[in-house]
Amino acid sequence: MYDSTTSTINNVDTIPVEISARHVHLSEQDAMALYGAPLTKVRELSQPGQFLCKERIRLIGPKGVIDNVAVLGPSRSSSQVEISKADARILGIKTPLRQSGDIEGTPGIILASQNNIVGLEEGVIIAARHIHMPSKDAQRFGVVDKDVVSVHLQGERALVLEEVLVRVNDDFALSMHIDIDEGNSVCWNKDTTGRIVARKQAF
Amino acid sequence: MYDSTTSTINNVDTIPVEISARHVHLSEQDAMALYGAPLTKVRELSQPGQFLCKERIRLIGPKGVIDNVAVLGPSRSSSQVEISKADARILGIKTPLRQSGDIEGTPGIILASQNNIVGLEEGVIIAARHIHMPSKDAQRFGVVDKDVVSVHLQGERALVLEEVLVRVNDDFALSMHIDIDEGNSVCWNKDTTGRIVARKQAF
Repeated sequence: MYDSTTSTINNVDTIPVEISARHVHLSEQDAMALYGAPLTKVRELSQPGQFLCKERIRLIGPKGVIDNVAVLGPSRSSSQVEISKADARILGIKTPLRQSGDIEGTPGIILASQNNIVGLEEGVIIAARHIHMPSKDAQRFGVVDKDVVSVHLQGERALVLEEVLVRVNDDFALSMHIDIDEGNSVCWNKDTTGRIVARKQAF
Repeated sequence: MYDSTTSTINNVDTIPVEISARHVHLSEQDAMALYGAPLTKVRELSQPGQFLCKERIRLIGPKGVIDNVAVLGPSRSSSQVEISKADARILGIKTPLRQSGDIEGTPGIILASQNNIVGLEEGVIIAARHIHMPSKDAQRFGVVDKDVVSVHLQGERALVLEEVLVRVNDDFALSMHIDIDEGNSVCWNKDTTGRIVARKQAF
Protein backbone atom coordinates (compact mmCIF):
# COMPACT_ATOMS: atom_id res chain seq x y z
CA MET A 1 0.00 0.00 0.00
CA TYR A 2 2.91 2.31 0.80
CA ASP A 3 5.69 2.72 -1.64
CA SER A 4 8.93 3.39 0.19
CA THR A 5 11.34 1.89 -2.29
CA THR A 6 10.63 3.31 -5.72
CA SER A 7 9.39 6.78 -4.78
CA THR A 8 11.51 9.85 -5.21
CA ILE A 9 10.45 11.51 -2.01
CA ASN A 10 12.93 13.46 0.05
CA ASN A 11 13.16 11.50 3.28
CA VAL A 12 16.09 13.47 4.69
CA ASP A 13 14.89 17.03 5.26
CA THR A 14 12.74 17.60 8.31
CA ILE A 15 9.37 19.25 8.81
CA PRO A 16 8.44 21.23 11.96
CA VAL A 17 5.66 19.56 13.94
CA GLU A 18 3.02 21.48 15.89
CA ILE A 19 0.24 20.26 18.17
CA SER A 20 -3.27 21.55 17.51
CA ALA A 21 -4.88 21.79 20.93
CA ARG A 22 -8.69 21.91 21.09
CA HIS A 23 -10.07 25.04 19.44
CA VAL A 24 -13.06 26.56 17.68
CA HIS A 25 -13.44 28.43 14.39
CA LEU A 26 -16.54 30.65 14.28
CA SER A 27 -18.66 32.00 11.47
CA GLU A 28 -19.08 35.77 11.58
CA GLN A 29 -22.72 35.24 12.49
CA ASP A 30 -21.94 32.90 15.39
CA ALA A 31 -19.17 35.23 16.65
CA MET A 32 -21.62 38.16 16.66
CA ALA A 33 -24.27 36.08 18.43
CA LEU A 34 -21.83 34.97 21.12
CA TYR A 35 -19.77 38.11 21.71
CA GLY A 36 -21.84 40.92 20.17
CA ALA A 37 -18.77 42.02 18.18
CA PRO A 38 -16.27 40.65 15.67
CA LEU A 39 -13.37 38.52 16.94
CA THR A 40 -10.38 40.27 18.53
CA LYS A 41 -6.84 39.20 17.58
CA VAL A 42 -4.34 38.70 20.41
CA ARG A 43 -1.57 36.69 18.75
CA GLU A 44 -0.54 35.56 15.25
CA LEU A 45 -0.29 31.79 14.70
CA SER A 46 2.26 29.96 12.57
CA GLN A 47 -0.03 29.75 9.53
CA PRO A 48 -0.08 33.19 7.84
CA GLY A 49 -3.29 35.14 8.54
CA GLN A 50 -4.46 32.83 11.33
CA PHE A 51 -4.67 34.23 14.86
CA LEU A 52 -5.63 33.42 18.42
CA CYS A 53 -8.58 35.51 19.66
CA LYS A 54 -9.15 37.25 22.98
CA GLU A 55 -12.52 35.51 23.16
CA ARG A 56 -12.82 32.12 24.91
CA ILE A 57 -15.67 29.66 24.55
CA ARG A 58 -17.47 26.93 26.49
CA LEU A 59 -18.28 23.60 24.79
CA ILE A 60 -21.46 21.93 26.07
CA GLY A 61 -22.22 18.31 25.19
CA PRO A 62 -24.83 15.87 26.47
CA LYS A 63 -22.41 14.37 29.02
CA GLY A 64 -20.09 17.19 29.96
CA VAL A 65 -18.70 20.66 29.52
CA ILE A 66 -15.24 21.96 28.57
CA ASP A 67 -14.49 25.55 29.55
CA ASN A 68 -12.09 28.21 28.38
CA VAL A 69 -11.51 26.80 24.89
CA ALA A 70 -9.44 28.82 22.38
CA VAL A 71 -11.16 30.62 19.51
CA LEU A 72 -9.12 31.07 16.33
CA GLY A 73 -9.66 33.73 13.69
CA PRO A 74 -10.38 34.95 11.14
CA SER A 75 -14.07 34.01 10.86
CA ARG A 76 -14.95 31.15 8.50
CA SER A 77 -18.05 30.45 6.45
CA SER A 78 -19.08 27.73 8.96
CA SER A 79 -18.24 27.27 12.61
CA GLN A 80 -16.07 24.23 13.40
CA VAL A 81 -15.03 22.64 16.70
CA GLU A 82 -11.78 20.62 16.78
CA ILE A 83 -11.38 18.33 19.79
CA SER A 84 -9.48 15.21 20.86
CA LYS A 85 -10.74 11.68 21.51
CA ALA A 86 -10.54 12.38 25.24
CA ASP A 87 -12.56 15.60 24.83
CA ALA A 88 -15.18 13.71 22.80
CA ARG A 89 -15.62 11.30 25.74
CA ILE A 90 -15.96 14.14 28.25
CA LEU A 91 -18.57 15.90 26.09
CA GLY A 92 -20.36 12.67 25.18
CA ILE A 93 -20.19 13.41 21.46
CA LYS A 94 -19.30 10.60 19.05
CA THR A 95 -16.88 12.56 16.88
CA PRO A 96 -15.50 11.48 13.51
CA LEU A 97 -11.97 11.97 12.21
CA ARG A 98 -12.12 14.58 9.45
CA GLN A 99 -9.92 17.04 7.62
CA SER A 100 -10.65 20.66 8.55
CA GLY A 101 -13.58 22.06 6.55
CA ASP A 102 -15.10 18.64 5.82
CA ILE A 103 -17.93 18.88 8.33
CA GLU A 104 -20.94 17.56 6.41
CA GLY A 105 -22.82 15.06 8.55
CA THR A 106 -20.67 15.64 11.63
CA PRO A 107 -22.30 16.04 15.08
CA GLY A 108 -23.49 19.32 16.52
CA ILE A 109 -22.74 20.94 19.87
CA ILE A 110 -23.75 23.88 22.07
CA LEU A 111 -21.32 26.81 22.25
CA ALA A 112 -21.56 29.34 25.07
CA SER A 113 -19.97 32.69 25.88
CA GLN A 114 -20.59 34.70 29.06
CA ASN A 115 -23.57 36.31 27.33
CA ASN A 116 -25.17 33.91 24.91
CA ILE A 117 -25.41 30.37 23.58
CA VAL A 118 -25.39 29.09 20.01
CA GLY A 119 -26.39 25.61 18.86
CA LEU A 120 -24.39 24.17 15.97
CA GLU A 121 -26.20 21.61 13.80
CA GLU A 122 -22.85 20.15 12.74
CA GLY A 123 -19.14 20.93 12.88
CA VAL A 124 -17.53 18.83 15.63
CA ILE A 125 -14.49 16.92 14.37
CA ILE A 126 -11.29 15.28 15.46
CA ALA A 127 -8.84 16.95 13.08
CA ALA A 128 -6.99 14.45 10.90
CA ARG A 129 -3.24 14.99 10.78
CA HIS A 130 -1.89 16.92 7.82
CA ILE A 131 1.05 18.91 6.53
CA HIS A 132 0.77 22.53 5.41
CA MET A 133 3.25 23.02 2.60
CA PRO A 134 4.10 25.90 0.22
CA SER A 135 4.76 24.72 -3.34
CA LYS A 136 8.53 25.28 -3.09
CA ASP A 137 8.65 22.79 -0.21
CA ALA A 138 6.36 20.34 -2.04
CA GLN A 139 8.89 20.36 -4.87
CA ARG A 140 11.73 19.85 -2.42
CA PHE A 141 9.98 16.90 -0.73
CA GLY A 142 8.80 15.37 -4.02
CA VAL A 143 5.10 15.44 -3.17
CA VAL A 144 1.99 17.09 -4.57
CA ASP A 145 -1.24 18.44 -3.11
CA LYS A 146 -3.49 15.70 -1.65
CA ASP A 147 -0.66 13.16 -1.45
CA VAL A 148 -0.99 10.85 1.54
CA VAL A 149 2.34 10.13 3.19
CA SER A 150 3.88 8.38 6.19
CA VAL A 151 5.90 10.59 8.50
CA HIS A 152 8.53 9.49 11.00
CA LEU A 153 8.58 11.59 14.17
CA GLN A 154 11.65 11.40 16.35
CA GLY A 155 11.15 11.54 20.12
CA GLU A 156 11.32 9.50 23.30
CA ARG A 157 8.50 7.37 21.86
CA ALA A 158 9.47 7.52 18.18
CA LEU A 159 6.78 6.49 15.70
CA VAL A 160 5.64 6.63 12.11
CA LEU A 161 2.27 8.23 11.43
CA GLU A 162 0.60 6.90 8.28
CA GLU A 163 -2.28 8.52 6.38
CA VAL A 164 -0.92 12.06 6.65
CA LEU A 165 -2.54 14.40 4.10
CA VAL A 166 -0.27 16.85 2.27
CA ARG A 167 -1.94 20.22 1.59
CA VAL A 168 0.00 22.43 -0.81
CA ASN A 169 -0.72 26.16 -0.94
CA ASP A 170 1.61 29.13 -1.21
CA ASP A 171 -0.30 30.84 1.59
CA PHE A 172 0.88 28.12 3.99
CA ALA A 173 3.98 27.95 6.17
CA LEU A 174 5.65 24.51 6.27
CA SER A 175 4.26 22.70 9.30
CA MET A 176 2.82 19.31 10.23
CA HIS A 177 -0.22 19.47 12.50
CA ILE A 178 -1.01 16.62 14.89
CA ASP A 179 -3.47 16.50 17.77
CA ILE A 180 -2.74 16.27 21.48
CA ASP A 181 -3.05 12.46 21.57
CA GLU A 182 -0.55 12.05 18.75
CA GLY A 183 1.69 14.62 20.42
CA ASN A 184 1.58 12.81 23.75
CA SER A 185 2.30 9.51 22.00
CA VAL A 186 5.60 10.72 20.60
CA CYS A 187 6.49 12.75 23.74
CA TRP A 188 6.31 15.88 21.60
CA ASN A 189 8.27 18.99 22.42
CA LYS A 190 8.77 22.23 20.47
CA ASP A 191 11.82 20.79 18.74
CA THR A 192 10.02 17.70 17.42
CA THR A 193 10.36 17.29 13.66
CA GLY A 194 9.12 14.78 11.11
CA ARG A 195 10.57 13.14 7.98
CA ILE A 196 8.41 11.86 5.13
CA VAL A 197 9.38 8.19 4.82
CA ALA A 198 6.83 6.87 2.32
CA ARG A 199 4.13 7.99 -0.07
CA LYS A 200 0.87 6.07 -0.38
CA GLN A 201 0.45 4.84 -3.93
CA ALA A 202 -2.47 6.13 -5.97
CA PHE A 203 -4.98 3.35 -6.69
CA MET B 1 18.94 1.59 13.36
CA TYR B 2 16.06 -0.69 12.52
CA ASP B 3 16.63 -3.75 10.46
CA SER B 4 13.55 -4.56 8.44
CA THR B 5 15.21 -6.29 5.51
CA THR B 6 17.55 -8.98 6.80
CA SER B 7 15.75 -10.02 9.97
CA THR B 8 13.78 -13.22 10.16
CA ILE B 9 10.91 -11.81 12.15
CA ASN B 10 7.38 -12.94 11.50
CA ASN B 11 5.66 -9.79 10.26
CA VAL B 12 2.44 -11.55 9.22
CA ASP B 13 0.84 -12.90 12.38
CA THR B 14 -0.96 -10.38 14.54
CA ILE B 15 -0.75 -9.55 18.24
CA PRO B 16 -3.77 -8.42 20.29
CA VAL B 17 -3.41 -4.85 21.54
CA GLU B 18 -4.78 -3.63 24.88
CA ILE B 19 -4.88 -0.15 26.40
CA SER B 20 -3.54 0.26 29.92
CA ALA B 21 -5.68 2.97 31.47
CA ARG B 22 -4.31 4.76 34.54
CA HIS B 23 -3.91 2.40 37.50
CA VAL B 24 -2.03 1.74 40.72
CA HIS B 25 -0.17 -1.29 42.03
CA LEU B 26 0.14 -1.33 45.82
CA SER B 27 2.58 -2.93 48.21
CA GLU B 28 0.90 -5.06 50.88
CA GLN B 29 1.91 -2.48 53.46
CA ASP B 30 0.42 0.43 51.51
CA ALA B 31 -2.78 -1.54 50.82
CA MET B 32 -3.16 -2.27 54.56
CA ALA B 33 -2.51 1.38 55.44
CA LEU B 34 -5.09 2.62 52.93
CA TYR B 35 -7.86 0.03 53.28
CA GLY B 36 -7.13 -1.74 56.58
CA ALA B 37 -7.31 -5.09 54.77
CA PRO B 38 -5.69 -6.94 51.85
CA LEU B 39 -6.90 -6.13 48.30
CA THR B 40 -10.17 -7.67 47.09
CA LYS B 41 -10.36 -9.23 43.61
CA VAL B 42 -13.37 -8.31 41.45
CA ARG B 43 -12.24 -9.36 37.95
CA GLU B 44 -9.39 -11.29 36.31
CA LEU B 45 -7.31 -9.35 33.76
CA SER B 46 -5.81 -10.70 30.54
CA GLN B 47 -2.40 -11.37 32.10
CA PRO B 48 -2.66 -14.59 34.19
CA GLY B 49 -2.80 -13.88 37.94
CA GLN B 50 -3.45 -10.15 37.55
CA PHE B 51 -6.79 -8.76 38.72
CA LEU B 52 -8.83 -5.60 39.12
CA CYS B 53 -9.58 -4.79 42.77
CA LYS B 54 -12.76 -3.57 44.43
CA GLU B 55 -10.72 -0.78 46.01
CA ARG B 56 -10.40 2.57 44.24
CA ILE B 57 -7.81 5.24 44.97
CA ARG B 58 -7.32 9.01 44.76
CA LEU B 59 -4.11 10.45 43.28
CA ILE B 60 -3.04 13.77 44.81
CA GLY B 61 -0.37 15.88 43.14
CA PRO B 62 0.83 19.43 43.76
CA LYS B 63 -1.45 20.82 41.02
CA GLY B 64 -4.46 18.54 40.96
CA VAL B 65 -6.31 15.42 42.00
CA ILE B 66 -7.55 12.40 40.04
CA ASP B 67 -10.31 10.38 41.71
CA ASN B 68 -11.60 6.85 41.42
CA VAL B 69 -8.44 5.32 39.93
CA ALA B 70 -8.25 1.53 39.45
CA VAL B 71 -6.14 -0.58 41.80
CA LEU B 72 -4.66 -3.78 40.33
CA GLY B 73 -3.65 -6.87 42.28
CA PRO B 74 -1.89 -8.86 43.51
CA SER B 75 0.27 -6.73 45.82
CA ARG B 76 3.81 -5.96 44.65
CA SER B 77 7.01 -5.34 46.56
CA SER B 78 6.73 -1.59 45.82
CA SER B 79 3.73 0.57 45.01
CA GLN B 80 3.65 1.97 41.47
CA VAL B 81 1.37 4.52 39.80
CA GLU B 82 0.93 4.36 36.01
CA ILE B 83 -0.52 7.47 34.39
CA SER B 84 -0.69 9.24 31.02
CA LYS B 85 0.96 12.47 29.88
CA ALA B 86 -2.39 14.25 30.29
CA ASP B 87 -2.74 12.87 33.85
CA ALA B 88 0.79 14.04 34.66
CA ARG B 89 -0.19 17.57 33.66
CA ILE B 90 -3.36 17.49 35.77
CA LEU B 91 -1.43 16.27 38.82
CA GLY B 92 1.53 18.58 38.20
CA ILE B 93 4.03 15.73 38.37
CA LYS B 94 6.89 15.62 35.85
CA THR B 95 6.68 11.91 35.06
CA PRO B 96 9.27 9.88 33.17
CA LEU B 97 8.63 7.13 30.64
CA ARG B 98 9.65 3.82 32.26
CA GLN B 99 9.05 0.11 31.97
CA SER B 100 6.93 -1.29 34.80
CA GLY B 101 9.04 -2.05 37.89
CA ASP B 102 11.81 0.39 36.93
CA ILE B 103 10.88 3.10 39.43
CA GLU B 104 14.23 4.16 40.89
CA GLY B 105 14.47 7.94 40.94
CA THR B 106 10.90 8.48 39.71
CA PRO B 107 8.67 11.10 41.38
CA GLY B 108 6.49 10.46 44.40
CA ILE B 109 2.81 11.15 44.95
CA ILE B 110 0.13 11.15 47.65
CA LEU B 111 -2.38 8.25 47.55
CA ALA B 112 -5.68 8.50 49.41
CA SER B 113 -8.54 6.14 50.26
CA GLN B 114 -11.70 7.14 52.12
CA ASN B 115 -9.88 6.41 55.38
CA ASN B 116 -6.21 7.20 55.07
CA ILE B 117 -3.42 8.72 53.02
CA VAL B 118 -0.03 7.32 52.06
CA GLY B 119 2.91 9.28 50.67
CA LEU B 120 5.03 7.47 48.09
CA GLU B 121 8.67 8.59 47.84
CA GLU B 122 8.82 7.31 44.27
CA GLY B 123 6.82 5.17 41.84
CA VAL B 124 5.00 7.45 39.39
CA ILE B 125 5.66 6.48 35.76
CA ILE B 126 4.26 6.70 32.26
CA ALA B 127 4.36 3.03 31.29
CA ALA B 128 6.49 2.41 28.21
CA ARG B 129 4.81 0.26 25.57
CA HIS B 130 5.68 -3.42 25.60
CA ILE B 131 4.58 -6.86 24.45
CA HIS B 132 3.89 -9.72 26.86
CA MET B 133 4.87 -12.93 25.10
CA PRO B 134 5.05 -16.60 26.11
CA SER B 135 8.15 -18.35 24.73
CA LYS B 136 6.15 -20.32 22.14
CA ASP B 137 5.00 -17.02 20.62
CA ALA B 138 8.50 -15.53 20.83
CA GLN B 139 9.70 -18.46 18.74
CA ARG B 140 6.84 -17.96 16.29
CA PHE B 141 7.60 -14.22 15.92
CA GLY B 142 11.36 -14.72 15.75
CA VAL B 143 12.17 -12.53 18.74
CA VAL B 144 13.78 -13.00 22.15
CA ASP B 145 13.32 -11.44 25.57
CA LYS B 146 14.35 -7.75 25.72
CA ASP B 147 14.24 -7.33 21.93
CA VAL B 148 13.08 -3.87 20.89
CA VAL B 149 10.76 -3.95 17.90
CA SER B 150 8.60 -1.69 15.73
CA VAL B 151 4.92 -2.63 15.60
CA HIS B 152 2.40 -1.61 12.95
CA LEU B 153 -1.08 -1.01 14.34
CA GLN B 154 -3.95 -0.96 11.89
CA GLY B 155 -6.77 1.51 12.53
CA GLU B 156 -8.39 4.68 11.26
CA ARG B 157 -5.13 6.44 12.11
CA ALA B 158 -2.70 3.64 11.29
CA LEU B 159 0.81 4.00 12.67
CA VAL B 160 4.04 2.23 13.51
CA LEU B 161 5.20 2.37 17.12
CA GLU B 162 8.97 2.05 17.48
CA GLU B 163 10.88 1.20 20.67
CA VAL B 164 8.47 -1.52 21.79
CA LEU B 165 10.04 -3.82 24.40
CA VAL B 166 9.42 -7.57 24.06
CA ARG B 167 9.05 -9.34 27.42
CA VAL B 168 9.14 -13.12 27.15
CA ASN B 169 7.80 -15.22 30.03
CA ASP B 170 5.69 -18.36 30.00
CA ASP B 171 3.45 -16.84 32.68
CA PHE B 172 2.35 -14.19 30.15
CA ALA B 173 -0.53 -14.18 27.70
CA LEU B 174 0.31 -12.72 24.28
CA SER B 175 -0.67 -9.05 24.38
CA MET B 176 0.76 -5.67 23.47
CA HIS B 177 0.14 -2.93 26.05
CA ILE B 178 -0.09 0.72 24.99
CA ASP B 179 -1.30 3.72 26.97
CA ILE B 180 -4.42 5.80 26.41
CA ASP B 181 -2.59 8.43 24.31
CA GLU B 182 -1.19 5.79 21.99
CA GLY B 183 -4.61 4.13 21.87
CA ASN B 184 -6.35 7.39 20.96
CA SER B 185 -3.72 8.08 18.31
CA VAL B 186 -4.53 4.89 16.40
CA CYS B 187 -8.30 5.12 17.06
CA TRP B 188 -8.01 1.89 19.06
CA ASN B 189 -10.89 -0.48 19.46
CA LYS B 190 -11.06 -3.96 21.00
CA ASP B 191 -10.27 -5.55 17.63
CA THR B 192 -7.07 -3.55 17.10
CA THR B 193 -4.05 -5.77 16.44
CA GLY B 194 -0.38 -5.19 15.76
CA ARG B 195 2.26 -6.75 13.50
CA ILE B 196 5.96 -6.68 14.28
CA VAL B 197 7.53 -5.00 11.24
CA ALA B 198 11.14 -4.52 12.33
CA ARG B 199 13.60 -5.41 15.05
CA LYS B 200 16.07 -2.89 16.42
CA GLN B 201 19.60 -4.10 15.82
CA ALA B 202 21.82 -4.82 18.77
CA PHE B 203 24.72 -2.38 19.00
